Amino acid sequence: MKELIVDLGERSYPIYIGEGMISGISGFFEKHGIRKASPLMIVTDEHVAARHLDSVANGLRAGGFDVVTKIVPSGETSKSLAILEDIVTDALQAGLDRSSCIVALGGGVVGDLAGFAAASYMRGIRFVQIPTTILAHDSSVGGKVAVNHKLAKNVIGAFHQPEFVLYDTSTLNTLPDREVRAGFSEVIKHGLIWDAAFVDWCRDHADRLLALEPEALATALYTGCKVKAAVVSQDEKENGLRAILNLGHTIGHALEAVAGYNELLHGEAISIGMVGAARLAMKLGHPESIYRETKEILSRFGLPVRLPEHMDTEQIMSAMMHDKKFKEGKMVFIIPTAIGKVEINHQISVEWVRETVEQLKREE
Amino acid sequence: MKELIVDLGERSYPIYIGEGMISGISGFFEKHGIRKASPLMIVTDEHVAARHLDSVANGLRAGGFDVVTKIVPSGETSKSLAILEDIVTDALQAGLDRSSCIVALGGGVVGDLAGFAAASYMRGIRFVQIPTTILAHDSSVGGKVAVNHKLAKNVIGAFHQPEFVLYDTSTLNTLPDREVRAGFSEVIKHGLIWDAAFVDWCRDHADRLLALEPEALATALYTGCKVKAAVVSQDEKENGLRAILNLGHTIGHALEAVAGYNELLHGEAISIGMVGAARLAMKLGHPESIYRETKEILSRFGLPVRLPEHMDTEQIMSAMMHDKKFKEGKMVFIIPTAIGKVEINHQISVEWVRETVEQLKREE
Ligand SMILES: NC(=O)c1ccc[n+]([C@@H]2O[C@H](COP(=O)([O-])OP(=O)(O)OC[C@H]3O[C@@H](n4cnc5c(N)ncnc54)[C@H](O)[C@@H]3O)[C@@H](O)[C@H]2O)c1
Ligand SMILES: NC(=O)c1ccc[n+]([C@@H]2O[C@H](COP(=O)([O-])OP(=O)(O)OC[C@H]3O[C@@H](n4cnc5c(N)ncnc54)[C@H](O)[C@@H]3O)[C@@H](O)[C@H]2O)c1
Ligand SMILES: [Zn+2]
Ligand SMILES: [Zn+2]
Repeated sequence: MKELIVDLGERSYPIYIGEGMISGISGFFEKHGIRKASPLMIVTDEHVAARHLDSVANGLRAGGFDVVTKIVPSGETSKSLAILEDIVTDALQAGLDRSSCIVALGGGVVGDLAGFAAASYMRGIRFVQIPTTILAHDSSVGGKVAVNHKLAKNVIGAFHQPEFVLYDTSTLNTLPDREVRAGFSEVIKHGLIWDAAFVDWCRDHADRLLALEPEALATALYTGCKVKAAVVSQDEKENGLRAILNLGHTIGHALEAVAGYNELLHGEAISIGMVGAARLAMKLGHPESIYRETKEILSRFGLPVRLPEHMDTEQIMSAMMHDKKFKEGKMVFIIPTAIGKVEINHQISVEWVRETVEQLKREE
Repeated sequence: MKELIVDLGERSYPIYIGEGMISGISGFFEKHGIRKASPLMIVTDEHVAARHLDSVANGLRAGGFDVVTKIVPSGETSKSLAILEDIVTDALQAGLDRSSCIVALGGGVVGDLAGFAAASYMRGIRFVQIPTTILAHDSSVGGKVAVNHKLAKNVIGAFHQPEFVLYDTSTLNTLPDREVRAGFSEVIKHGLIWDAAFVDWCRDHADRLLALEPEALATALYTGCKVKAAVVSQDEKENGLRAILNLGHTIGHALEAVAGYNELLHGEAISIGMVGAARLAMKLGHPESIYRETKEILSRFGLPVRLPEHMDTEQIMSAMMHDKKFKEGKMVFIIPTAIGKVEINHQISVEWVRETVEQLKREE
């Protein structure tokens, strides 16, 4: 088992990464002082519930915890105020109090949703994450939680740090192939913004990673979390540095919104977005090799680098205008200046972005 | 003009109390560095909009602020996730960004609602309070913001401190009589929990206060805010001491919930609740004079001290079980041990509470 501390002063917490830890789950909850006298609610989605809810819930019950479960529909549309209200209904009916804990068992959707429920229920109760997707290595660090609004993603939310994160890699074996690939998109992103050697390592271990070889997988998740933790520790509330984590996300979020949160997975959308950012880098005079290598590593992991042609450029542009990365008429982009290095650029012209979106439709 | 600092370290903020400050409103916003480049949203309700929105909005516009306004229906039912979503829709359409500010112009309802919108919009933007009720002297200190759930009040919320509070007593002249009286309920509460001399002062100045005589009014609001600020500064996140502010609220909230948030105003409900707490004090062996004086001062301000007989005791009891003051099977109550002094008592038996509810129906 690997352990990583996300260093946030008073709000620091550990991430435990390894195989098979769910079999000893109550020990982790006990160690972190989660109360047995107050009901604890596991929030999960339909797909995850079918595969992993029993082992988690029964493990906790065997340890003497008073467990209630809440299963929400799978998919991004569950990140809504309506589902949040529904969770609160169940929480009240089950008697969750201010000493209770909400456990997110699932991917980033469940993490964000259950996390915001924990952040706002009675103005904030405890929260534990049990990520079951590769992508969730990202959402499990940093305490950003949120639901979506029909006009924009993640615009209703909070910063709420978990007590701890239990990342049992054995849960990942049931993940559909496409989700596996999409998850590696954020892993690669963490290399691209911070650690060129890690990008090389990912390239060298691509086959083992895609086969979910436990050793390699744990290393990849650990390193991905570590990069994110390093960034977040320096800037908990996203006043500056933390923005670099948004590499590929300005375009990516817009694509998700226009595609109706359905056609493209988050990881796929930001894969295309990262190619877009590399294209903008070229326009700014940075080496073409950044663009080439970005595209190459993403393709190596089976990720899309080309924008579906039928998607309307103007709709994508207008979705970006609603995104929170848009500030006072100028567009802010995270731009790669080398592999493993990015800058926050506030001077990206709307015209360049439109041109880039068009070029992304013709990417090979 | 009086100025009171709510001392919360990094999150400290001033409350300005006085007559006619709205005429110089932009000065306050400039002084606090509120940006003119980002749209600012005033959230208010129908009653307040009709009386005070123009002067506030025009004052800010004259000062160069980019103002959008959002008018919600008056009343407690606006504290809902549905209205929150609606505010976010407008905010996104108006282009509010992370540097924007939400201004709550109104009573506690608008303060709590707009405050939670500010706390959660893009995970938290700036927030200014312009209270227009007497009761809002309470809600403007401490940063508790929330919306209601159909099963319980204030269960979905956050802690979010304003940049500053502008309390212009001239807005109070348009307040209906019943709201004036209900507002004094929390003023008196602040005396009852902390400051016996202030209770005496209120008794001596009752006529002037009920006539909204500016000098007396400013003193009462200042002192009420000061008591609350003192408590909150010592316990921002309600881990202990802050609970004393809930004098009268365990029963009060239940009454509001059972009455459907309509029949009883918040201040009226907690007035009855404070009489209930004084009754529980008697059962615990504290002097009967506490009960007598509590009832007397509340009656002096025209506040109800008797529970409407038609309200069902069991419904009230079960509403209390959903309230956040209910913890692990025992009932927690704030109990007066003298005028100006309370204790947090975790040992109140459900039977005593039921008995008290019954007695409150026969109060004279
Ligand atoms: N909070 C943050 O910092 C942060 C960071 C990145 C992404 N996110 C959010 O994360 C979300 C995307 O996360 P995601 O990709 O994990 O999506 P997800 O939670 O929807 O999971 C993807 C799919 O896989 C299924 N699934 C999950 N675990 C499974 C398992 N072990 N076996 C079988 N099926 C499983 C889910 O039911 C779902 O259908 C987005 O909403 C995004 O905004 C948040
Ligand atoms: N956040 C906190 O710490 C805190 C503390 C106490 C109460 N509260 C909340 O405050 C709310 C009650 O506050 P309230 O009593 O101010 O209610 P309110 O905001 O509903 O105002 C009462 C009524 O007066 C009207 N009104 C307000 N100002 C007016 C004016 N100047 N002229 C004419 N009409 C005016 C309103 O439209 C409403 O009809 C409750 O929801 C309660 O939970 C919060
Ligand atoms: Zn992402
Ligand atoms: Zn109150």
